[in-house]
Amino acid sequence: MDFKMKKTIDHIRTEIDDIDSQLLQLIKRRLQSVKEIGQIKTTMGIPIYDPQREADLINKHRNKATHHNLSADLVENLLKLIIQESYLNQIGSGYKQTNSKINKIIIIGGQGKMGRLFANQFQLSGYQVVVLDREDSLKDNKIFDLAGLVLISVPINKTVEVINSLPKLPNNCVLADITSIKKIPVKAMLKAHQGPVVGLHPMFGPSVRSFANQLIIQCNGRKPNQYQWLIEQITLWGCRIEKVTPIMHDKAMGFIQALRHFTSFVYGSFLETAKVDLSLVLKLSSPIYRLELSLVGRLFAQSPELYADIILASKFNLTIIKRYIKTLSNQLSSLRKEDRDDFIKQFHKTSDYFGEYSSSFLSETEQLLNKT
Amino acid sequence: MDFKMKKTIDHIRTEIDDIDSQLLQLIKRRLQSVKEIGQIKTTMGIPIYDPQREADLINKHRNKATHHNLSADLVENLLKLIIQESYLNQIGSGYKQTNSKINKIIIIGGQGKMGRLFANQFQLSGYQVVVLDREDSLKDNKIFDLAGLVLISVPINKTVEVINSLPKLPNNCVLADITSIKKIPVKAMLKAHQGPVVGLHPMFGPSVRSFANQLIIQCNGRKPNQYQWLIEQITLWGCRIEKVTPIMHDKAMGFIQALRHFTSFVYGSFLETAKVDLSLVLKLSSPIYRLELSLVGRLFAQSPELYADIILASKFNLTIIKRYIKTLSNQLSSLRKEDRDDFIKQFHKTSDYFGEYSSSFLSETEQLLNKT
Repeated sequence: MDFKMKKTIDHIRTEIDDIDSQLLQLIKRRLQSVKEIGQIKTTMGIPIYDPQREADLINKHRNKATHHNLSADLVENLLKLIIQESYLNQIGSGYKQTNSKINKIIIIGGQGKMGRLFANQFQLSGYQVVVLDREDSLKDNKIFDLAGLVLISVPINKTVEVINSLPKLPNNCVLADITSIKKIPVKAMLKAHQGPVVGLHPMFGPSVRSFANQLIIQCNGRKPNQYQWLIEQITLWGCRIEKVTPIMHDKAMGFIQALRHFTSFVYGSFLETAKVDLSLVLKLSSPIYRLELSLVGRLFAQSPELYADIILASKFNLTIIKRYIKTLSNQLSSLRKEDRDDFIKQFHKTSDYFGEYSSSFLSETEQLLNKT
Repeated sequence: MDFKMKKTIDHIRTEIDDIDSQLLQLIKRRLQSVKEIGQIKTTMGIPIYDPQREADLINKHRNKATHHNLSADLVENLLKLIIQESYLNQIGSGYKQTNSKINKIIIIGGQGKMGRLFANQFQLSGYQVVVLDREDSLKDNKIFDLAGLVLISVPINKTVEVINSLPKLPNNCVLADITSIKKIPVKAMLKAHQGPVVGLHPMFGPSVRSFANQLIIQCNGRKPNQYQWLIEQITLWGCRIEKVTPIMHDKAMGFIQALRHFTSFVYGSFLETAKVDLSLVLKLSSPIYRLELSLVGRLFAQSPELYADIILASKFNLTIIKRYIKTLSNQLSSLRKEDRDDFIKQFHKTSDYFGEYSSSFLSETEQLLNKT
């Protein structure tokens, strides 16, 4: 390279280094300021996660970006990263307690990963938490006389058994579970306890670093106003709550969890059986395929028991899977007849079904891969 | 809220606003500086995309972040967004021409979306580009006498037909295609032309806004040193090149493209047939499932013909799909017998196969969803 040009490039690079140092300082100051607001909010019992303010802020910055002749998408994405980091910064600083009259929270299975996660959140919110193992004798345990909330956090296939072995709970005690299915556990809890009952399904695994912006599904059992404090507490942690009936929940999860996990599991197994060279495949993959393969491969860094339980959770799941395989076979048959028209017809039908979702999914994923 | 607290929060928010304005200014200056370097590089014919320098820069900033007590992941992600934006900023500013002796580049099918994308890149690099429609008469077209490169950019099922209808090309003319399959087109090109031949497969669609960091697969046909200028030109645009044989390419694509696209297509069709309520499913979805559904739904915003062609590209693809469906059925059978052990055994086998990839995929996807 030309010596003069090289010197110019070096000079500009020094400038960029200087800008980067300033950027780091500013980001640090911004995180600190947001943390201060979070601390005030926690003291006041205001939820840290405020979707409306977040949306307003993003909108304001998009406009600012356009005004400064900068890409609005870039600024939105940068801001989202910084906001997410702010949530992570709040962890451990404690939460306001929404019900100080609760004497004890008992978590059965609280030594499991999800149980420990919830135990920690309740403790950070000022509750006294007692952790029991599912092997512990429950029947004659006097500790339940003082319980304000009993939370079942055991593997799916142990849930009903544990619920059935509970002693009589105080009338005002809330009985709740966090299993991935809802119809059977909620029914069992309603039978085992005459007081308030609620089924919860956290749509995240134990690896999350923050509850902010996470989703928990709520299935009401009985006397919802007596566990309103629990819902408010979870909301204070930053979670989004969606309410559905246990039956709607289980049906949707058949499509959301069971079918996806099963097909991903089989796709992974299939690559293994076919002895496909993963490093070659990755070398030849576009970012979008690398992402698809990651979504399959990540399964295998997790617990096989959990996935077996989710898939085997209900007969309905296996029916869905069976129908899906039938659809695959039918579509393959028409392809074998080189019936392109049939493929294209079904494609258009499905495009109509997805409607505007398909193009928003396309831009969403492109943006995610930074390829917009 | 307490009036004093409210005032404190408002005060901190004003500070944050001020920080954000400074951040915007700095980002703008940084993009401008990088653009200046890009312009110098373009003049000198140095590739804009420099993976090694990018990796070094990210490493340096991760260290800086840790030194400043900031999350290294946050800083890496912010930097990647800004770098990506810098690439987009380069578009339209032109590229150095790697071979000024090329008289004309002829793109057959250059009115299609991919054809236009390549035509534009060649024009920005100083070449004279002639665009022909695949319906145009090729046989007696005198324009080929001046061609330095003929690039075939027509639908898969027309590729061989178009290659066979080419007139005799000058001996030194490079013949290339950008079809998603490689064995058949490369064979046809080698037969149709005695000069240099190369098969290319761009692993991206026409919706990309930049060639930077995109992948193109190269399958050598004949006389590679006579089309080295073309590979260098593509590299100057910022593309990553991977070389494989046409047979390896087609086999890998069976697993990468055909099987994934087919199963996504069927999953979408299945949701349509089962009349699943998409808005309910999205409401109940965790970010990871929303992402999985997006990867399926995005298909249906694109061309059914393209996907039909990719899946039907070779008999091998249909064989892979058939074997995959068989694996699904077998796994379902063992689940119906409630054979959890078999599931868990196969899960562990597949975990071993994925090896360290599975945990890196897990953290990669978590990071992508900003949930690390």
